[in-house]
Amino acid sequence: MRALFLNCTLKRSPEVSHTHALIETSQALFKKEGIDSTVIRIADHHIPCGMQPRINDSDEWPPIFEQVMNSDILIIGTPIWLGEKSSVASLVIERLYASSGEKNPDGQYIYYNKVGGVLATGNEDGGKEACRSLIYALQHIGFTIPPQADAYWVGEAGPGPSYIEEGTKNTFTQRNTQFMTYNLIHFARMLNKQRIPAIGNVTLGKF
Amino acid sequence: MRALFLNCTLKRSPEVSHTHALIETSQALFKKEGIDSTVIRIADHHIPCGMQPRINDSDEWPPIFEQVMNSDILIIGTPIWLGEKSSVASLVIERLYASSGEKNPDGQYIYYNKVGGVLATGNEDGGKEACRSLIYALQHIGFTIPPQADAYWVGEAGPGPSYIEEGTKNTFTQRNTQFMTYNLIHFARMLNKQRIPAIGNVTLGKF
Amino acid sequence: MRALFLNCTLKRSPEVSHTHALIETSQALFKKEGIDSTVIRIADHHIPCGMQPRINDSDEWPPIFEQVMNSDILIIGTPIWLGEKSSVASLVIERLYASSGEKNPDGQYIYYNKVGGVLATGNEDGGKEACRSLIYALQHIGFTIPPQADAYWVGEAGPGPSYIEEGTKNTFTQRNTQFMTYNLIHFARMLNKQRIPAIGNVTLGKF
Amino acid sequence: MRALFLNCTLKRSPEVSHTHALIETSQALFKKEGIDSTVIRIADHHIPCGMQPRINDSDEWPPIFEQVMNSDILIIGTPIWLGEKSSVASLVIERLYASSGEKNPDGQYIYYNKVGGVLATGNEDGGKEACRSLIYALQHIGFTIPPQADAYWVGEAGPGPSYIEEGTKNTFTQRNTQFMTYNLIHFARMLNKQRIPAIGNVTLGKF
Repeated sequence: MRALFLNCTLKRSPEVSHTHALIETSQALFKKEGIDSTVIRIADHHIPCGMQPRINDSDEWPPIFEQVMNSDILIIGTPIWLGEKSSVASLVIERLYASSGEKNPDGQYIYYNKVGGVLATGNEDGGKEACRSLIYALQHIGFTIPPQADAYWVGEAGPGPSYIEEGTKNTFTQRNTQFMTYNLIHFARMLNKQRIPAIGNVTLGKF
Repeated sequence: MRALFLNCTLKRSPEVSHTHALIETSQALFKKEGIDSTVIRIADHHIPCGMQPRINDSDEWPPIFEQVMNSDILIIGTPIWLGEKSSVASLVIERLYASSGEKNPDGQYIYYNKVGGVLATGNEDGGKEACRSLIYALQHIGFTIPPQADAYWVGEAGPGPSYIEEGTKNTFTQRNTQFMTYNLIHFARMLNKQRIPAIGNVTLGKF
Repeated sequence: MRALFLNCTLKRSPEVSHTHALIETSQALFKKEGIDSTVIRIADHHIPCGMQPRINDSDEWPPIFEQVMNSDILIIGTPIWLGEKSSVASLVIERLYASSGEKNPDGQYIYYNKVGGVLATGNEDGGKEACRSLIYALQHIGFTIPPQADAYWVGEAGPGPSYIEEGTKNTFTQRNTQFMTYNLIHFARMLNKQRIPAIGNVTLGKF
Repeated sequence: MRALFLNCTLKRSPEVSHTHALIETSQALFKKEGIDSTVIRIADHHIPCGMQPRINDSDEWPPIFEQVMNSDILIIGTPIWLGEKSSVASLVIERLYASSGEKNPDGQYIYYNKVGGVLATGNEDGGKEACRSLIYALQHIGFTIPPQADAYWVGEAGPGPSYIEEGTKNTFTQRNTQFMTYNLIHFARMLNKQRIPAIGNVTLGKF
C-alpha cells in the first residue's frame, strides 16, 4: 500500500514549507503502520496549466500523475492565502480533473478505489475553506473520503507566527492529522480487500 | 438498512418542491435495491436554531435526530438560493454539528459508520457550491463520503424553468443521482459488514 | 444618516453574543462620527423562511426590512459555525434577496445607493469564508461594497476562548473593524451627495 | 480613465477563449463611453507563483502589476473548472495580494480608489462561486466593489456548449455585463472626482 502527498506550497525547495511540517506528522504515522509514503513538492516542477494530460514537451505532470495512479491514498497539502487553497493546489485539481473521464477496466472512473484527504496550514483563518474545496473536488472525481479526512493549522486572526514558528504542537491539529491518517489507512485497506462493486456507477452509452 | 433524506426546501407542504422531485429519483433506486427510505421536509417542522440538542419544549429536532441515528445513509437535499445551500440546510448542519461531540461505544464520534450524500436543485448556478458545503460538513463530523456522492440540477444562467418544469430528464443529473445512490449503498453495505476500526480515530484524554 | 446592524447570532437575548461585542466596537465609531446606529438581533424575532416579502401573519421580517430600507448602511454580523456564516445569516440573505427585484423610482434595484459590510466572530477559523459569502450576496443584490468592508475575529485552530473571553483586544480585528466602519461612512456620504447615475443599470423591457 | 481586463483562461493564444468573448461585450461598452480598455491574457505570460513582487529574472508579472496600478478599473475574467475560478485566477489574486501591504502617499493601501469587477464563463455551474471568491479578494485588498459588479454565463448542468458555441446571446448575462460595466464606470468617475478620505483607514504604528 502506498500514500502520496502533493505539497502545494508556493515555495520552491529548499525554502521551508510549513505545510511540509504538517505532512511529516502524517508521514510518521504511515511509517508506524508500515505504509510507504512519498511527498512531491509541486512548485519544484514545471507544471503548466491546461486541460490536456500533457500540455507540452517540458510538462512534468505526467510522471506525477503516474504516481497518483500507483498510490492507494492521495493527500493534498496546501498553504492558505487570502483564506483559500493555493493556486498550486488549484492547478493540481485541474490536472487531476483533466484525466477524470478515463475509466478503469470495470468501467468506473479511474480514481475509484483510491482514498483522499487534505492538510492545510496558514498563519490565520481559512483552514476549513481550503479543505472544503479540495475534499469536494476529490470526491467529485471519484476518490472516497473517509470520516474526518481533513486537518489544518491556523493561528489567531491577524499577522502572527506560522505553523513551525508556533512549534507544531497544537493538540487539535495533531489529533485531526492522526484521525485523517488512520481513517485513510482503514479505508484504503477496506478497498484493497473489496473493490467498490461496479454496479450503478458505470458510465454507459448516452452519458 | 435504512436511508434518510432531509429535504431542506424553503417551501412547506403541500407546496411543490423541485428538490423533492430529484429525491424521488434516488428513492426509486433505493427501493429497487430493497432499501427503505424516508423523506423529512424540514420546513414542515418547528426547528429552532441553537447549539443544544434540544432548544425548547416545542423543538421538533430531537425525533429527527433520532431518525438520523437510526439510518445508515443520510442524504441532504437542498434548493439553491443566491448560489448557495438554503438556510434550512445550514440549520440542519448546525443541529447535526451540535451533537457531533458525542461518542459511540467504541469511542468514535457518533456519525462514524454512516455514509452521506447531497442532492441540490436550483433554476440556475450553484449546484457544486451547495454540495461542496454539505459534503465537507458531513465528512468533517464523521460521515463517510463515497465517490461522486453529490448530484444536482441547475439550468442556464438567468431566470428560467425549475427542475420539474424542465421535465426532470437531464441525463447528467439522472446519471449522477444514480452514481450517488449506488455508491451510498455500496459503502453502507461495506460498513455494515465491517465497522471502521476504532484505531487512531478515538478521542482520548487531552483532546 | 443611519446604520443598521443585523446580528445573526444563534443565541436569543439575554444570552451573551460575541458577535455583538464586535458590533459594539463599530457602533462606538459611528457614534463618534455622529451617525445613529441600531442593532437588531434576528434570533429574538420570528422570521420564517421563504421567498415572499411576508410569509405569514406572525412573520416579523417586514418591519426589519423597513429598517433596512430606512438605513444608508447595512452591516451583517454573524457567528461562525463549521467554518461558515450562521443559518440565521443565510435566512437574512434569503429574505433580502426575495425583495431584490423591486425597483427605486429611477428604475434601479432597491438596494442601490446603500452600502454594506460584514462582521464575523468565531472561536476558530472561518472568518473570511463567512465574510466572502455575505459580501458577495450584498453586492450581488445592489449594495456598494467599500474597500476592506469585512472584519472578523477567530482564534487559533481548535477549541478555545471566544471573542469576549479573549478580551476583544486583537489589534488586527480592531483595525479592520475601524477600516470597515470608516469606509462605510465615506461611501454612504459620497452616495448621499451623489446617487449612482441611473445609466446602464436600469432594467428595461426584455430583461 | 483606463480599464484593465486580466483574462485568466487556461488557454494560451491563439486558442479561442470563451471568457474573452464575454470580456468583449464589456469592452464594447467601455469604448462607447470613451474609456480605453486593455486585455491581458495571463496564460500567455510566464507568471511564477510566490509572495514576492518579483519572483525571478523571467517573471513577467511586474509589468502587468504596473498596468494594474495605472488603471482605474480592474476586471478579472475567469473560466470555471470544477465549479471554481481557474488556477490562473488564483495566481493573479496571490500576486496582487503580495503587494497589498504597500501604501499610497495618503497612507492608504495601494488599491484604494480603484474599482473592481468580475466576469466568469463555464459550460455549466460555478459562476457565482468564481465571482464570490474574486469579488471578496478584491474588496479585501482595497478595491471598491460597485453594485452588481459580477456577471457570468453558465449552461445547464452537465456537458454542453460553451459560451461562444451557445451564441453569446443570453440576455441575463448581457444585462449583468452591462450593469457591471456601467457601475464600474460610475464609481471610477466618482472616485476620480473625490478620492476616499484618508480618515480611519490609514495604518499607523502598531498595526
